[in-house]
Amino acid sequence: MSEGLIVREQEPLNLEMPFSSLSGFITPNESFYVRCHFPIPEISAEEWRLTVEGEVGAPFELSYDELLGMESRTIAATLECAGNNRIFLEPKVKGVQWGLGAVGNASWTGVPLSALLDRSGLKSNALEVILEGADEGEVDKTPKPAGKISFCRSLPLKKAIEDVLLAYKMNGEKLSATHGFPLRAIVPGWYAMASVKWLRRIVVTDKPFNGFYQSLDYTYWDRSGPLPTLAPLAEQQTKAEIARPENGETVAANSVYRVHGAAWSGTAEITRVEVSFDLGGSWQDAKLLGEPLKNAWRLWEYEWQTPAKAGRHTIIARATDSHGIPQPVDRSGDRGTYMINHLLPLEVDVS
Amino acid sequence: MSEGLIVREQEPLNLEMPFSSLSGFITPNESFYVRCHFPIPEISAEEWRLTVEGEVGAPFELSYDELLGMESRTIAATLECAGNNRIFLEPKVKGVQWGLGAVGNASWTGVPLSALLDRSGLKSNALEVILEGADEGEVDKTPKPAGKISFCRSLPLKKAIEDVLLAYKMNGEKLSATHGFPLRAIVPGWYAMASVKWLRRIVVTDKPFNGFYQSLDYTYWDRSGPLPTLAPLAEQQTKAEIARPENGETVAANSVYRVHGAAWSGTAEITRVEVSFDLGGSWQDAKLLGEPLKNAWRLWEYEWQTPAKAGRHTIIARATDSHGIPQPVDRSGDRGTYMINHLLPLEVDVS
Repeated sequence: MSEGLIVREQEPLNLEMPFSSLSGFITPNESFYVRCHFPIPEISAEEWRLTVEGEVGAPFELSYDELLGMESRTIAATLECAGNNRIFLEPKVKGVQWGLGAVGNASWTGVPLSALLDRSGLKSNALEVILEGADEGEVDKTPKPAGKISFCRSLPLKKAIEDVLLAYKMNGEKLSATHGFPLRAIVPGWYAMASVKWLRRIVVTDKPFNGFYQSLDYTYWDRSGPLPTLAPLAEQQTKAEIARPENGETVAANSVYRVHGAAWSGTAEITRVEVSFDLGGSWQDAKLLGEPLKNAWRLWEYEWQTPAKAGRHTIIARATDSHGIPQPVDRSGDRGTYMINHLLPLEVDVS
Repeated sequence: MSEGLIVREQEPLNLEMPFSSLSGFITPNESFYVRCHFPIPEISAEEWRLTVEGEVGAPFELSYDELLGMESRTIAATLECAGNNRIFLEPKVKGVQWGLGAVGNASWTGVPLSALLDRSGLKSNALEVILEGADEGEVDKTPKPAGKISFCRSLPLKKAIEDVLLAYKMNGEKLSATHGFPLRAIVPGWYAMASVKWLRRIVVTDKPFNGFYQSLDYTYWDRSGPLPTLAPLAEQQTKAEIARPENGETVAANSVYRVHGAAWSGTAEITRVEVSFDLGGSWQDAKLLGEPLKNAWRLWEYEWQTPAKAGRHTIIARATDSHGIPQPVDRSGDRGTYMINHLLPLEVDVS
């Protein structure tokens, strides 16, 4: 299952795709990064139930077979871990040391969350929807909850209704245990902590939920209001990553090298990817491949005429989205160890 | 200023009253505990302004003299630090090591916050009121805000309107710098982190505020809902403390000793204080002194006929409030390092 993946942590299991292996729009299941917070729960499809409760008129539960019998949809969505690229932070910070590959793009098949919310008879005071996974364990931050907690995240009702898919298939195959069998929420455009795996419960609330993974973890300091307020991570930030060349790779002088990678944004389409070989002094447009698709990455390439002279060279890629906002050069400390999308130069040896 | 107080920390200044010196309903200003998070700001009454802004129709600012010219009220209120009694926790935890004396009762004179909110023309979407102090500095928890932050706390609009006093006098004297000159919010019944000192700004918001001191600090795990949620500390928990004898004190055998102390509750009146000399096997009613007063402590005493035989004895006090809820015997780990009101036996030597 984990063949070819970089093991960042064995227990809980955290596996990264070597981003240099990027070969197409769809990331194969066996190459897709794996992020776990606790041991992977063993779930039997026969015994598993999904409950829908809280501020609803008619709470209910669904079996796996019932879910499979509902009208399904298939969407492409790029999932990125909120800590992707963390290994490049200076000074070093705590957390799984992800390089470039805690990101992947798959097609997901399942039932829109809205179908279940419709059936539940949402009350008029419904404000948020909590998604709870079956994975649980102890956490070690202050204040520390007494005993085990389960992994859960909430969404504003609007996002839950408009965008979320409850997926039981990934790239046409039954979801694997590592990816959340039997059911994973897919929250398009958001960092992947929102895409709760091993989903077992949906709770509609009339109050903002401030669970561990949206207060002590997976948060940042939001300064858009009158005073800094701790906010749960949400939308993926615009980013381009270079798959090849890799950092430290040797490329032939005086030749044509295909620089390529992927770019994505949680809130808009990618409209431009540029590359720079002089630390941002000048930028060349890369070619965007395929069609723009909301919430899925876009592959790009650039035919690089490598220098005639041997030596060390830098390459930077940067993406701009349809709001016209390019990736930032620097990083705000208010983002803590998350949302890492500032420009990352890589070095290659021309020989 | 700090004569007779226990210095728990010099910088920032944190001073505790030796609780054995409890001598009356009012804690004298010079005996009142001092809690600071940052250096004490130097504020000139002439230059100081209080601004009222946010979700209001008519933002405005007030000078010190204007505030003094408004209709005033005087209330008695007990302030207790949310970490009071922390030194008794096992295992030891981080934070200022308060004993029994991070609590005091004073009369406060000032202007009801509601008078300012009325004048501001609250908008219909007003939800919370943030109180911001002039004290600021860096904090060291993850996620760490970039740069300095000021001390601030928010209140639900209802509490802000119904109960809060903006005090410029403490026990009839002008507020001292250590106690928040020129203005301190008094939030009766709540732990004292809500009673923001050196008040400089009032911001009405339409969203829940999740500032540092109500997310990473001064919070606990609330399990009253479907899933644990991090909640800001609020109401003081019912508690009786023994002033005398002190822990480790020697008392004369076969005599009458006046066991005495204070008891308080953030949400109800104290209706009963009991003492036990057999680790809770049996309880004797103490005598409640004075009249019950909402949000102020109640003094109590018990004439103890000490044993004829020398030896070590334990004493426990427990309070019950008008909701009939006595202090808990044990402590929930979900409270972290705060809200410490479980029963605390003290030991005395009878000789």
